[in-house]
Amino acid sequence: MPTKTHSPAPSDKALVPFVSVDHMMQLIHMHGVADMLRGLARYIEEDFRRWEKFDKTPRIASHSPGGVIELMPTSDGEAYGFKYVNGHPKNTAEGLQTVTAFGLLADVATGYPVLLTEMTLLTALRTAATSALVARTLAPKGATTMAMIGNGAQSEFQSLAMQALCGITHVRLYDTDAAATAKCAGNLAGSGLHVTACATPEEALEGAQIITTCTADKRRATILTGNMVGSGVHINAIGGDCPGKTEIAPDVLNRADIFVEFPEQTRIEGDIQQLDPDHPVTEIWQVLTGAAQGRHSDAQITLFDGVGFAIEDFSALRFIRDRIVGTHCFEPLDMLADPDDPRDLFGMLMRAQPD
Amino acid sequence: MPTKTHSPAPSDKALVPFVSVDHMMQLIHMHGVADMLRGLARYIEEDFRRWEKFDKTPRIASHSPGGVIELMPTSDGEAYGFKYVNGHPKNTAEGLQTVTAFGLLADVATGYPVLLTEMTLLTALRTAATSALVARTLAPKGATTMAMIGNGAQSEFQSLAMQALCGITHVRLYDTDAAATAKCAGNLAGSGLHVTACATPEEALEGAQIITTCTADKRRATILTGNMVGSGVHINAIGGDCPGKTEIAPDVLNRADIFVEFPEQTRIEGDIQQLDPDHPVTEIWQVLTGAAQGRHSDAQITLFDGVGFAIEDFSALRFIRDRIVGTHCFEPLDMLADPDDPRDLFGMLMRAQPD
Repeated sequence: MPTKTHSPAPSDKALVPFVSVDHMMQLIHMHGVADMLRGLARYIEEDFRRWEKFDKTPRIASHSPGGVIELMPTSDGEAYGFKYVNGHPKNTAEGLQTVTAFGLLADVATGYPVLLTEMTLLTALRTAATSALVARTLAPKGATTMAMIGNGAQSEFQSLAMQALCGITHVRLYDTDAAATAKCAGNLAGSGLHVTACATPEEALEGAQIITTCTADKRRATILTGNMVGSGVHINAIGGDCPGKTEIAPDVLNRADIFVEFPEQTRIEGDIQQLDPDHPVTEIWQVLTGAAQGRHSDAQITLFDGVGFAIEDFSALRFIRDRIVGTHCFEPLDMLADPDDPRDLFGMLMRAQPD
Repeated sequence: MPTKTHSPAPSDKALVPFVSVDHMMQLIHMHGVADMLRGLARYIEEDFRRWEKFDKTPRIASHSPGGVIELMPTSDGEAYGFKYVNGHPKNTAEGLQTVTAFGLLADVATGYPVLLTEMTLLTALRTAATSALVARTLAPKGATTMAMIGNGAQSEFQSLAMQALCGITHVRLYDTDAAATAKCAGNLAGSGLHVTACATPEEALEGAQIITTCTADKRRATILTGNMVGSGVHINAIGGDCPGKTEIAPDVLNRADIFVEFPEQTRIEGDIQQLDPDHPVTEIWQVLTGAAQGRHSDAQITLFDGVGFAIEDFSALRFIRDRIVGTHCFEPLDMLADPDDPRDLFGMLMRAQPD
């Protein structure tokens, strides 16, 4: 650390709590993954139930040949949040992450930031919490088994969220890469879940009431086709999440009742990009408020075409803001200039001159 | 600081250099205000000269009864930058700043952030550097005296930038609040500038070749009216910078040749919001590249209707990114999750478990 200058310590409001990656991991371990997932789902449900209060600005994307950088802002009129997130598929070749993310929450009344946080881990948690919140609402009662197709970075979080929120006891794993399945199974050892590594997607689907697809192929893939999917299941389709990237065959989509976060976004990014732009879908927030019907029969196939929406990040930011209170899982950042007299910014600078 | 967990130290690329308010003040004192202003003007000029390379997204504003929160992104295809800035006029009543700002620069090729910095001080510097860069281009040759109307937070920065870049030796101060003038004069003591506190705006204008207006009134004010302004001067009008806030009487605007940053934005935010939407203006970047004419006669009144544009913030971020190299004026922030295997985010979390 450099020598402090003579400037007086900044006031409390000028210090922005910052949650680093290390802090986030400490916070998760302090509470346990299951508790964090349940807490997040509570905040997300709360925000989904007051969906109409939110300013739903489309994300602002800056595209380049190598990828995209996006800002995802939203506000409920009291708090304002945004997430910075990039997507650069070629990064892994250079030992970098494809996606990195951080987020900020601010107070609408003053414009002052109140939280800056890593959001790579937090996004993984909120994505899983959203899936499980939706599955708790739509999956057949008494579901015990989930098929997990695609055993990448999101697979453990999905499995643990379905355990924590929906009471799933068995997970059946499948990935085209057996090493990914082994990694996921290893990470879930000790979770209390019965984990079965499967050699084919068909095997993974045996006896599953919930089917989660989360594969990484950036193309029109068909992970689930018609003859694989029986009646009565809930499909949690979260890997089809950008234009040109889908997982579910149209005949499965056509047999299912489809639930989405925000139709305007999902029709561009989700699996339903394969369907007509006026294909009927139900907004999940309306199911949560009771304004729309969820599952209405045992034979029905429900499908959540999840793409991730800014309001979920907002809920996650609110959750972390509240959860770090009284912990050491943050550090105050001296990010906002705070002269005693706002007209005397220069005087503040002069008084900070070293001897 | 909390106990470190067992996670391995993040890789260099996962650490984002952060420049706090205190760091920024140290950096300014290390080089001196004049050198920082000259350096910033160099970067801004460089970016203005390649204006057409930039993605000129409009700012994304979130309005509320108390104020506005804005994100101002831009990119030149190699770097991507955005500034977060709020404007809450009522904040001062609660002892808070009206405006706070921070910014981020990222690498377009990877999407990785490369700099996070305070931007309240930095915006003050870049605003003054832009004004002086424009004045150096448009003001009459041999200008020695500037009238500074409005002696708030920006006044010292404007004065020093005009000294550092345009060779101004005399500053004549006026403010409706004599305390503001005394504050500005006090802060400029020792700068080498001859400073005169004036009792009226007319007195401040005596002998001035450059007239800077930077008043804070959020309304249609007329700081400069027709009979006050003689021929041959350069007007640096920077206080009229949002809808409903203007400083210059239409008859002065009509007598002047008007230069702007980005017409689409200035016609909404600048003093020219008072004129017809097709009133002729010249883009300052075109004067710098030689594509358009600047001052062409001694009698001409030139007027820079400055409102501040995202590209100037981008230049400022680039400047700070380069200027902190080899200094202690930043700290590395553990902001980006960096698992050894991108598919094993959960494993990274598990390995961070404390004993």
